[in-house]
Amino acid sequence: MLLPTFSDILEAHALIKPFIHRTPVLTSKSINGIVGCDLFFKCENFQKVGAFKFRGAVNAVFSLSEDAAQAGVGTHSSGNHAAALALAARMRGIQAHIVMPSNAPEVKKIAVAGYGANITYCEPTLQARETTLKKLTDELGLTVVHPYNNFKVICGQGTAALELLEEIGSADMLLCPVGGGGLLSGTAIVTKALLPGCKVIAAEPKGADDAFRSFRDGCIYPSVHPATIADGLLTSLGDLTFAVIQQNVDEIVTASEESIVAAMRMIWERMKIIVEPSSALPLAVILENREKFAGKRIGIILSGGNVELTKLPF
Amino acid sequence: MLLPTFSDILEAHALIKPFIHRTPVLTSKSINGIVGCDLFFKCENFQKVGAFKFRGAVNAVFSLSEDAAQAGVGTHSSGNHAAALALAARMRGIQAHIVMPSNAPEVKKIAVAGYGANITYCEPTLQARETTLKKLTDELGLTVVHPYNNFKVICGQGTAALELLEEIGSADMLLCPVGGGGLLSGTAIVTKALLPGCKVIAAEPKGADDAFRSFRDGCIYPSVHPATIADGLLTSLGDLTFAVIQQNVDEIVTASEESIVAAMRMIWERMKIIVEPSSALPLAVILENREKFAGKRIGIILSGGNVELTKLPF
Repeated sequence: MLLPTFSDILEAHALIKPFIHRTPVLTSKSINGIVGCDLFFKCENFQKVGAFKFRGAVNAVFSLSEDAAQAGVGTHSSGNHAAALALAARMRGIQAHIVMPSNAPEVKKIAVAGYGANITYCEPTLQARETTLKKLTDELGLTVVHPYNNFKVICGQGTAALELLEEIGSADMLLCPVGGGGLLSGTAIVTKALLPGCKVIAAEPKGADDAFRSFRDGCIYPSVHPATIADGLLTSLGDLTFAVIQQNVDEIVTASEESIVAAMRMIWERMKIIVEPSSALPLAVILENREKFAGKRIGIILSGGNVELTKLPF
Repeated sequence: MLLPTFSDILEAHALIKPFIHRTPVLTSKSINGIVGCDLFFKCENFQKVGAFKFRGAVNAVFSLSEDAAQAGVGTHSSGNHAAALALAARMRGIQAHIVMPSNAPEVKKIAVAGYGANITYCEPTLQARETTLKKLTDELGLTVVHPYNNFKVICGQGTAALELLEEIGSADMLLCPVGGGGLLSGTAIVTKALLPGCKVIAAEPKGADDAFRSFRDGCIYPSVHPATIADGLLTSLGDLTFAVIQQNVDEIVTASEESIVAAMRMIWERMKIIVEPSSALPLAVILENREKFAGKRIGIILSGGNVELTKLPF
């Protein structure tokens, strides 16, 4: 299995730079005062489509040969990856085909359709999603872009950490959330290449701790009945992301739902920015383990800002 | 009556620069697409204490002579000005005395006390607030810093527009909300000095339209029973702010509560930043008067981001 390297991520960055936002790195004296360490937040909630997912999608779409591109791209997703792939495809002027469960939130359907994607609805089961996508792929010859277990997607996601470390120069630790592991894989490769002494720590909800257990035991446990407000972190690791994570990540730490909500609220109230629950995981882990992080210089990737304002946990 | 001039505001900016955040100017392609004009948002929700009020308070506090400063400063307020004055005083190492109504929200009391201010509680009437402050002033010889009808405060508030126009260079219009008129006065003086052709338009809630009527009729109508979600815009104009506004403002336009909430939600959802209802007034006015603003290049001051997350209007 060919694993992405740092130079693949540099190449990805050169390719996607004209299409993505270089998001700001924000700090908060008030949060630093509360947690007793220096935090640098890379704000992917300000990325296009509101999440880091756009980086990977753009890299995947713009890496395609002209012929492959003309046949279009596809994925099954009801989340940020669907919107990201749809917008990336529109930017290249090709068709995206998104398989969505019929019960996906109306607002997501509208967003994806708004980016010009062709939506196919199916039953809300993983099997129906895969079968429907397979049928489309066979018919149209399109390229499937997996949301995380994809070489080009991982390389794209790694560019967030690249920009963060370019900006802050040094760090003792870098934290990001882990769901399927795309963001974590790219982040870990970049960090170990630029700052070998910097610890890469992933943050995962206790109620969806499959990556924590997989990392500990050395085998992929699928995510079964995950129960967390962090709806971006429900998925299982893939073979590619698991291999990268085993080689490059130092630790996976879990956080309770209570801490996730407290961290999310702290970011909203103190920083005046909107982040989705998944983004709050790193701060939640810090809140639960103060001594571990005390006095450290820590980079954090805020993964996204797509949240239903009418369904807030506070 | 001595009115502030552009050079007073330049002087204020030089004085307060080391103490304030130079807040970012953000744009949103998606909102521009909806409203059909180019908007540049000056994000005072990211200012210290979460609102532009900090600029005026710092200017007032740091303009005091050493003797006056040692006697302390005071105000009556339950809002952003109280926190702003408290923090500004702490930065100068002097005492702030804040008179607050006993029914002020707990979170505001904690914030002001957290900045080291001395809080005196009183009955929740304007008369009780004024009497209590007067007593303190007589006893302690402190300098009262009015939240808006104050020369130095107006000059401080004008620095937000100064930074905004420095950054965007040109504009057809500049919009900000109006409550007591401190922000509007400073904004108007700066704009007319730097860009005489740029229209200064104030946005006010229909349910608290005393400034609109005062401006139209040429006399100050007090704000009686204001009814609006924009809790920063409940106050009446003062003689100083009214004089500046009469000379420098082109128009005051009102917006409905529905539009204020829609604009606030649009900023939260599209820009992923938290603004308080008062900040949404300019966009609300644009949403209600699309033709008037179509195709224009427009600066907007987002006044603050202090909002109770458990009491959102959506």
